[in-house]
Amino acid sequence: MNIQLSRIKELEEICKDIREEILRVVSKNGGHLSSTLGATELIVAMHEVFDSKKDPFIFDVSHQSYAHKLLTGRWKEFDTLREFGGLCGYTKPSESEHDYFVAGHSSTSISLGVGAAKAIALKGEQDSRVPVVMIGDGAMTAGMVYEALNELGDRKYPMVIILNDNEMSISKPIGAVSRILSSAMASPFYQNFKRHTENFVDNFGESARYIAKRMEESLKLITPGILFEEMGIDYIGPVDGHNLTSLIEILQKAKELKKPVIVHAQTIKGKGYEIAEGQEEKWHGVGPFDLDSGNAAKKSSAKSATQIYSEALLHLAKQNEKIVGATAAMPTGTGLDELMKVFPDRFWDVAIAEQHAVTSMAALAKEGFKPFCTIYSTFLQRGYDQVIHDTCLMNLPVVFALDRAGIVGEDGETHQGVFDISFLRAIPNMTLFAPRDEKSFHQAMAFASEYPYPCSLRYPRGAFTQTDLPDSLPFELSKSQLLRSESGDVLFIGYGNGVGRAYETSKYLDFGVSILDLRFVKPLDEEMLREMATKHKKWFVFSDSAKMGGVGSAILEFLAKEKILNVEVVSFEYEDRFITHGNTKQVEESLGLLPEQLAKKITESVK
Amino acid sequence: MNIQLSRIKELEEICKDIREEILRVVSKNGGHLSSTLGATELIVAMHEVFDSKKDPFIFDVSHQSYAHKLLTGRWKEFDTLREFGGLCGYTKPSESEHDYFVAGHSSTSISLGVGAAKAIALKGEQDSRVPVVMIGDGAMTAGMVYEALNELGDRKYPMVIILNDNEMSISKPIGAVSRILSSAMASPFYQNFKRHTENFVDNFGESARYIAKRMEESLKLITPGILFEEMGIDYIGPVDGHNLTSLIEILQKAKELKKPVIVHAQTIKGKGYEIAEGQEEKWHGVGPFDLDSGNAAKKSSAKSATQIYSEALLHLAKQNEKIVGATAAMPTGTGLDELMKVFPDRFWDVAIAEQHAVTSMAALAKEGFKPFCTIYSTFLQRGYDQVIHDTCLMNLPVVFALDRAGIVGEDGETHQGVFDISFLRAIPNMTLFAPRDEKSFHQAMAFASEYPYPCSLRYPRGAFTQTDLPDSLPFELSKSQLLRSESGDVLFIGYGNGVGRAYETSKYLDFGVSILDLRFVKPLDEEMLREMATKHKKWFVFSDSAKMGGVGSAILEFLAKEKILNVEVVSFEYEDRFITHGNTKQVEESLGLLPEQLAKKITESVK
Repeated sequence: MNIQLSRIKELEEICKDIREEILRVVSKNGGHLSSTLGATELIVAMHEVFDSKKDPFIFDVSHQSYAHKLLTGRWKEFDTLREFGGLCGYTKPSESEHDYFVAGHSSTSISLGVGAAKAIALKGEQDSRVPVVMIGDGAMTAGMVYEALNELGDRKYPMVIILNDNEMSISKPIGAVSRILSSAMASPFYQNFKRHTENFVDNFGESARYIAKRMEESLKLITPGILFEEMGIDYIGPVDGHNLTSLIEILQKAKELKKPVIVHAQTIKGKGYEIAEGQEEKWHGVGPFDLDSGNAAKKSSAKSATQIYSEALLHLAKQNEKIVGATAAMPTGTGLDELMKVFPDRFWDVAIAEQHAVTSMAALAKEGFKPFCTIYSTFLQRGYDQVIHDTCLMNLPVVFALDRAGIVGEDGETHQGVFDISFLRAIPNMTLFAPRDEKSFHQAMAFASEYPYPCSLRYPRGAFTQTDLPDSLPFELSKSQLLRSESGDVLFIGYGNGVGRAYETSKYLDFGVSILDLRFVKPLDEEMLREMATKHKKWFVFSDSAKMGGVGSAILEFLAKEKILNVEVVSFEYEDRFITHGNTKQVEESLGLLPEQLAKKITESVK
Repeated sequence: MNIQLSRIKELEEICKDIREEILRVVSKNGGHLSSTLGATELIVAMHEVFDSKKDPFIFDVSHQSYAHKLLTGRWKEFDTLREFGGLCGYTKPSESEHDYFVAGHSSTSISLGVGAAKAIALKGEQDSRVPVVMIGDGAMTAGMVYEALNELGDRKYPMVIILNDNEMSISKPIGAVSRILSSAMASPFYQNFKRHTENFVDNFGESARYIAKRMEESLKLITPGILFEEMGIDYIGPVDGHNLTSLIEILQKAKELKKPVIVHAQTIKGKGYEIAEGQEEKWHGVGPFDLDSGNAAKKSSAKSATQIYSEALLHLAKQNEKIVGATAAMPTGTGLDELMKVFPDRFWDVAIAEQHAVTSMAALAKEGFKPFCTIYSTFLQRGYDQVIHDTCLMNLPVVFALDRAGIVGEDGETHQGVFDISFLRAIPNMTLFAPRDEKSFHQAMAFASEYPYPCSLRYPRGAFTQTDLPDSLPFELSKSQLLRSESGDVLFIGYGNGVGRAYETSKYLDFGVSILDLRFVKPLDEEMLREMATKHKKWFVFSDSAKMGGVGSAILEFLAKEKILNVEVVSFEYEDRFITHGNTKQVEESLGLLPEQLAKKITESVK
């Protein structure tokens, strides 16, 4: 295919406009910046060669898909990106028919592609449709990708996989696969060689083919392609991911192959915004910033829970050399980056690989170490079996530190950290607790570092809700802390950041309430709850977690076991629906969870 | 190293004795046969070269580890294999210090090895200890393996990985990796070539090295090693896994490398018991059988739930061509083998790859198909995030059919299917229901096949508990069925196979009870429960599931929401501990869950 030069010029203009719009909106609203800027030409080329109304366009993690949104009728609404009620920062079919799937967690795309390809085959649509997958090099480390490639390479469904290689997952690339990919950068030699041998064979005919083939294969060893070709998947590349002419030609060729093929495109993160170009993690996901200087528009003054975690763990790790830890590709997000700097031998980024993170830490626990496995609540869903089978069954002292527990704001429904209590509480040998502020966090960490069995603590994105309630006392297994004792019927039970919400809510009431910081949802402080049941008959539960199987549910189980029938329990945990994106306060308001809203409900219910 | 011939003879005798003992005990008690027979020499060689008191011996899935048990002081107790109170069919540290980790789920071993290797490095024990991993080719398909290899190949911890390649996972090998491995079988050529070039280089010196190296690399392409070597892991093989002399020599060499190395050993499943030698899945896990004929000692007369599932799904699939399905390497275990025979294009074994199974089925649902994702309850833990993020967030009509829900008997704690209600119930858009017998199973399947959103049904290993309660009515969303109505205070609420247990329990009582088949634990039949609350004040819940977050918990949440305070709920679900292996009835007895035991508790509590 020969593409008209004029068309390329047009598309280059479109790329320019897209970048400007992305920069304008992301600098205003925050969002994912460097990956989406880097993928602009790839996405424009995808749309030039394929048809997103027909071909499944599958964006892995999909935070790089802003250009796709702009190209599919959402230019006008793009201004509302990540705002409450506005466009989602990820692909979302309910937003547009051009969005094939929801994706906020990494490495699902090739599995989706295989499923789509099977459907296409069953419907006999192979001539008119092909799944087009875009996946970043960072996402290639997760096991799901390999599971999907394994079936794809065997069954050979037609599929075009665009590997967007910017030599950077969210953080520094980790692992052998990353090394293999980046080796290609240094060897355009193979590409030239391949072209030459092709000419050679064309000129000298079949007799030369065998020798050429053999030589080519020798050289393939120094290219990344071999990994994929060994798995039965054709490999084309590497290609310049910012060169529209090559991209369109190659995608066209890939489309015509009617086989699984990986197009390895090399891109520059942040391309088009000089300040953000390159490897710096800080431009991956950003808050609002000043376009000219690149400076953040505002910096929150309150210390984030992540920062407290990082400081507390550093403090403990200096005292106890048995403390080790892992993050699954979120060193900055989890605050483990600081630990990795001070103790590079004891804290590891294992790449996007939650299953491996959990199980390898379990082995370290078996060897007498004290691992802090630091993973966002939503991503621990990826390591669930490993928590059960490799950690709790062995009753090993791994600490699961769950960052981003509760509503996470603008990232929205794929990232809400709401299920962890429900899925962890049912596991035998697991202990669950949560701090409510900076001081209690340090105490909780001290407890965790000494606790000889599996345990998990959760803490919110951003800062804890501050209170002027009494200071936290040191953590002791199962022990709650009664923070305020009043004679009335109403008891507020707070868990983690829920304590702050309980406190805030109490300020809107014209009657006094007792406030209990539950601290441990497993095991419960049965003695305290028994005592509370004699004093207060109306309990309200505050916790940033799903109601089903959550904190309220644990309390109900306890009351049922004790045959305490005269206590009414109302839980203000999240109802049974996925929670949308947007400013956290707005989202909470929409759920009726702001303190003033809760106070109103409580006042009505105790009337 | 030169091994004394006399020592080899001794070890061969030991292998013979081990095989005899395994055959004697497995033919009596049932257990895993063909993999463990096939791995005998590998394990004997492991023990010859490494020290299981010192070196972490890590057996993947560990059903092949019987020889290891026999070699580490458990010969006498081996007779109790898989019996209640006897030896576990898997490695278990509480049983012996020679067992490094619990393992019943596949593909965890390399992650454990990486964790152990990190610990060894931190402790400075690299000179005296090395992790030794044994993993089967079937386990190589799961994503966890790749996640671990990715870090291992990058960080290069010393580790010896014995790849036990018998060209057979539990079922027919699936996927590209399997193809790559088996290609080695056909090419001893490479091994010869490699030896020759080594001689050549030795004789002609450095000047020949470059050419030899290049030629060797060309040929590597046709060996399985390239996949691993590309990932930074040395490869030795393939070697004959039944030749003790070669094995010991090679393992010794691998040990001395002080690098990550894969020893690719080819073995024959069932080796040493002619009837079982070869590829047949039926010899993977067996019940008691006659050694001479190979015939099963007894065959259960009752139809298993798996069989009913298979029949029901086949019936539906014949009527509705949109029905498709997947199993993750358990075609026979799940009954999907029958479907794969009749509809080879619509039912897939995707190998041990639960994450990929779930997500690829979600894509088929998006395309208008009706996937039945058929996975044991315990293995769905591996696909948890995919149920949340790829299925329920998209609200797609995937049916999760959970076989082996409840106590599974002899496989024990790694395989108990007890957590599924707790971890699935919290997911928005998910519907959960369960059949109680053959008729209701067909009705539940008919419901599932029409239901337009995600749903999951669970059923036990083996046969349902039979009752003479009224026939099941067709399934309707959320609707329960009142099977027996009595005027007394006591209501039995059964869920799934719990209905049978409720019925059996009622027979031991000297007063009448009402019996409700709950059918749906999500959404609940609120109308019926409200009515029941007016009539009965003592509810007993019967379900083969964990109590925390389980059926009883769902009912308590409902009562709390309705502010119904005068109903007492007692759940007979499983308490918060891992459940051991053994004959199911004995295990249930130990938990106090036999109908007569439950009846006694109930009688006492209603006095």
